[in-house]
Amino acid sequence: MAAAEFWYEFASTYSYPAAMRVADLAQSRGVALAWQPFLLGPIFAAQGWRDSPFNIYPAKRRYMWRDRKRICDALGLPPLKRPVPFPQNSLLAARVALALDDATRADFSRAVYAAEFGQGLPIADRAVIAALLVKRGLDAETVLARAESDANKAALKAECARAAELGIIGAPSLVTGDGEVFWGNDRLEQGLDWAAGRRLKQD
Amino acid sequence: MAAAEFWYEFASTYSYPAAMRVADLAQSRGVALAWQPFLLGPIFAAQGWRDSPFNIYPAKRRYMWRDRKRICDALGLPPLKRPVPFPQNSLLAARVALALDDATRADFSRAVYAAEFGQGLPIADRAVIAALLVKRGLDAETVLARAESDANKAALKAECARAAELGIIGAPSLVTGDGEVFWGNDRLEQGLDWAAGRRLKQD
Repeated sequence: MAAAEFWYEFASTYSYPAAMRVADLAQSRGVALAWQPFLLGPIFAAQGWRDSPFNIYPAKRRYMWRDRKRICDALGLPPLKRPVPFPQNSLLAARVALALDDATRADFSRAVYAAEFGQGLPIADRAVIAALLVKRGLDAETVLARAESDANKAALKAECARAAELGIIGAPSLVTGDGEVFWGNDRLEQGLDWAAGRRLKQD
Repeated sequence: MAAAEFWYEFASTYSYPAAMRVADLAQSRGVALAWQPFLLGPIFAAQGWRDSPFNIYPAKRRYMWRDRKRICDALGLPPLKRPVPFPQNSLLAARVALALDDATRADFSRAVYAAEFGQGLPIADRAVIAALLVKRGLDAETVLARAESDANKAALKAECARAAELGIIGAPSLVTGDGEVFWGNDRLEQGLDWAAGRRLKQD
């Protein structure tokens, strides 16, 4: 079966609409999707950025919020919140997502995005993350302990290193089995088409 | 009639595939297209960049060349050249494009991109630009003189200032009549859908 990896960062604005639609897009193309939470911090640091490029470049920030509103409106996602502070610290959410099994991870990840960008909740807050776990019938303390184990911390670090090795430069990114990287919410379709063997389709 | 502006920079790598397909995309949606050559230099300088971001950030450069090859392959565009130096100095080409009437400007602009990225010709070279004008049945010296008149130089500067005012942060950009900006070759369809009153369509 065709397969692809969906690399996402919980602080990333465009990862939100991507996370909400990627499962359907993959399924309709018969592509098995692996959800890969990671952190953009090390990728950005390697480019010399110590902050989100949307904070460094105000014109890009203005464009992004307006563009993302149009995209989320079209998807019928709830009125967008702009998280404060921006970007949110996504370390805990990423560790928890990685500690979950595949089936739960996608569902939990969508819930984190909905909390962060739909409701404006602080995703660095343990209580916020715990509540999302409880809603999924999980024992929050058990999952949080697993998430913050040394093994899981090391696993997330390894994933971040792998992201850089794959050539990932931003989030979300779709990576195909043959190592092609497609960066951006607006490139999910092309990446999944490639993964499904259809290569690129243009108008 | 619905209308939109296509803002492009001759040195811009993604403006190449965009320029090659935007006219058909606009026509199929009944959108009248104005071709707006401009320079990214002032926009980038305002963000603190003195060079192309693809030169400043090697990981972005690697991604871009590979991504653009996939896109151009899918469009059937000729094997891509990487211009040397990169980016090319696009001032002369932009002045000439602006000095042409609407009908000729689109055709000339596509020819500049084909010369630069399809053949690897230096577009800052007057002889290269003159040859493209002659091929279109134009008197090259007359057009070049008009392009380098004080009035036309001032007109290009004014266009660059207008690009910044519109909120343009990169090229290519599609700007609709109601002031929406869509940045990127991969957003032409959405921008033109918006201009045609269809707003955004997502899978």
